[in-house]
Amino acid sequence: MISVQDARSRILSALTPTSAEIIPLAHAAGRVTATAIPARLTHPPHDVSAMDGYALRHTDGETLHIIGEAPAGHPWPGTIAPGQAIRLFTGSVIPRGADCVVIQENVTRTENHITLSGPRKPGQNIRPAGQDFTAGQTLLPASHRLTARDIGLIAAANHPWVSVHRRPRVAILATGDEIALPGDPIPDGGIVSSNAHALAALITQSGGDPSILPIAPDTHHAIAEAGRAAAGFDLLLTTGGASVGDHDLVASGLQQAGLTLDFWTIAMRPGKPLMHGHLGPLPLIGLPGNPVSALVCALLFALPALDRLQGLPGHPPTPRKATLASALQANDHRADHLRATLTPTDTLPLATPASRQDSGQLRTLALADALILRPPHAPRAEIGDVVDVILLR
Amino acid sequence: MISVQDARSRILSALTPTSAEIIPLAHAAGRVTATAIPARLTHPPHDVSAMDGYALRHTDGETLHIIGEAPAGHPWPGTIAPGQAIRLFTGSVIPRGADCVVIQENVTRTENHITLSGPRKPGQNIRPAGQDFTAGQTLLPASHRLTARDIGLIAAANHPWVSVHRRPRVAILATGDEIALPGDPIPDGGIVSSNAHALAALITQSGGDPSILPIAPDTHHAIAEAGRAAAGFDLLLTTGGASVGDHDLVASGLQQAGLTLDFWTIAMRPGKPLMHGHLGPLPLIGLPGNPVSALVCALLFALPALDRLQGLPGHPPTPRKATLASALQANDHRADHLRATLTPTDTLPLATPASRQDSGQLRTLALADALILRPPHAPRAEIGDVVDVILLR
Repeated sequence: MISVQDARSRILSALTPTSAEIIPLAHAAGRVTATAIPARLTHPPHDVSAMDGYALRHTDGETLHIIGEAPAGHPWPGTIAPGQAIRLFTGSVIPRGADCVVIQENVTRTENHITLSGPRKPGQNIRPAGQDFTAGQTLLPASHRLTARDIGLIAAANHPWVSVHRRPRVAILATGDEIALPGDPIPDGGIVSSNAHALAALITQSGGDPSILPIAPDTHHAIAEAGRAAAGFDLLLTTGGASVGDHDLVASGLQQAGLTLDFWTIAMRPGKPLMHGHLGPLPLIGLPGNPVSALVCALLFALPALDRLQGLPGHPPTPRKATLASALQANDHRADHLRATLTPTDTLPLATPASRQDSGQLRTLALADALILRPPHAPRAEIGDVVDVILLR
Repeated sequence: MISVQDARSRILSALTPTSAEIIPLAHAAGRVTATAIPARLTHPPHDVSAMDGYALRHTDGETLHIIGEAPAGHPWPGTIAPGQAIRLFTGSVIPRGADCVVIQENVTRTENHITLSGPRKPGQNIRPAGQDFTAGQTLLPASHRLTARDIGLIAAANHPWVSVHRRPRVAILATGDEIALPGDPIPDGGIVSSNAHALAALITQSGGDPSILPIAPDTHHAIAEAGRAAAGFDLLLTTGGASVGDHDLVASGLQQAGLTLDFWTIAMRPGKPLMHGHLGPLPLIGLPGNPVSALVCALLFALPALDRLQGLPGHPPTPRKATLASALQANDHRADHLRATLTPTDTLPLATPASRQDSGQLRTLALADALILRPPHAPRAEIGDVVDVILLR
């Protein structure tokens, strides 16, 4: 049994980012940049007004002649002389000759003249050219997941297209004679398959492109065929059949399709049976069949793998701090991940672990806000102790 | 000028959730339930094994005869008698007559017999029928945004389809003679439009269906036409033209298309000019033209509105706590939203406000992790003070 950290670094080190593709900026939120993004222009392109008001020379007197108007997008073509002012608006280019803007609230206007009040200084209410960015400047690095704010920044820098890593194609293979898809006939003593659709949703939310393969029954032949069908994908996720039970046929089935196993069990709970290997060039993560274990292992291993495939480092979920609302027993040698609810407070949130942590209870996972992280051999923890948690929402 | 809270409640109270539609479970992550979701079956459907091992009577002796095997999905049809055991696996139905499971690690097997070690008690390693949920039980309420974990739970409860609120259709109208779309010719003194695509990304991420309307030039006629083109949408977002400048034509242009104005200025920074009203049945939120102001106002008003349109209450972004890394001056009468970076610590994260908060700097917003909330008339805050922040990532 290897540690969670070892398992993750072995999974990640075997992955290569997908190639780049060019996509419309309008589709790029959530995608990961394949190249750094430079500014194609300077923004603002000229000195511009930060307010609605009047452009003038700060050394002028208090009464000025308005010689014209320069709306945003309609710069004043001439130069203003001493004693002259130009009416302008937020974003208007500052006319030649002017060096400050007086806001309209500090001006009394009569026909073609204004009378000023209050102090004036050079540069007042002016955004200098390049205040936001200058042409050629790198705005965003390669290997950066794009936010909605980034999309705005890239638009402002005049890029209609963005080069991003192709969405990793992830094949999801659920196995087992006992499972059926929702709405399909359920075998005697069987259950409805929940892993494939939950994993597909996670993968979509994390920038991947999931394909759910047909459920493979518990035969070597069917599992080997499914493994071959996954050729050409960037990652194969299986669920079920990764433990040591006689009917855990996934490893032996996939070995008929050429599987090289790396490891198949890790020191964590829920999710001891976690498998890693390769089917030729295709990386495989074999998740446990238990839905709680499968989803927790997906958060800890499959999502970092998906990040790595998209060109990111593939960090584990960022732990945050919380205060324990109930005591926890000393932990054994397996890293534990306890489903908990979080209650906001004036300082750290309060983490209340679910009273039952049976990995058969998917409902407890759906209702949880976070997983409390318990390292191997963590000592007993008391009410009020600060612990690391992974947020689920 | 009304407060941020008043503005939000006036916007929200005028909205009606979209109608329900039936969609495949596979497409339902991130959507909001239109009805409560009941369990269609009991899970697990029978008492099942939580481990790989042997089913037997806990009162039996230490050596037992193995009479058969019951893989998951293949229940043992008979009843086991005293002195008999059935080989089974995680998820296998417990055979009639058995009342406990001994895990395979605590068993010595020789051909058709096992010898047990360790204590045994009734129910050991058995998940009772209905431990996760029972048929008819409500698993998820109406008006709940579905997570990937929820998708798993709904699948397990045997729903291939889900009833959710239709994605709100949001028309986005950027206005101004000075703006051009990325890659298009830029007018003299003009800039590239960044608001429409950033807003569209935010709306998509929040469950909406955005349509970017062609940019409207600064004429009443063009703006009125664009307003008419938005008929049939669930929400119209405009950017620009909501302040009091002579060239702020959006309100007057839309009035030609039947706009009823509710309010048009609020006590916040960035984003004082925020407009709210109706074009017939179509609700309008008029965002400022400044990209930083537009995005901050979108977070505070448009995303809660989108939530409300999807059947959620439409809460503002949940504030979290952070510790100030630099002092802040006393605030004036406008609620302030300071771009800041967050650094994790062993307790609360450390919030460092950007040294310049000019609303012309979109790059500062893209680089920020959070907005520090400063209520109206907040007193000076010192290094180490705890403040509320809105997370941006």
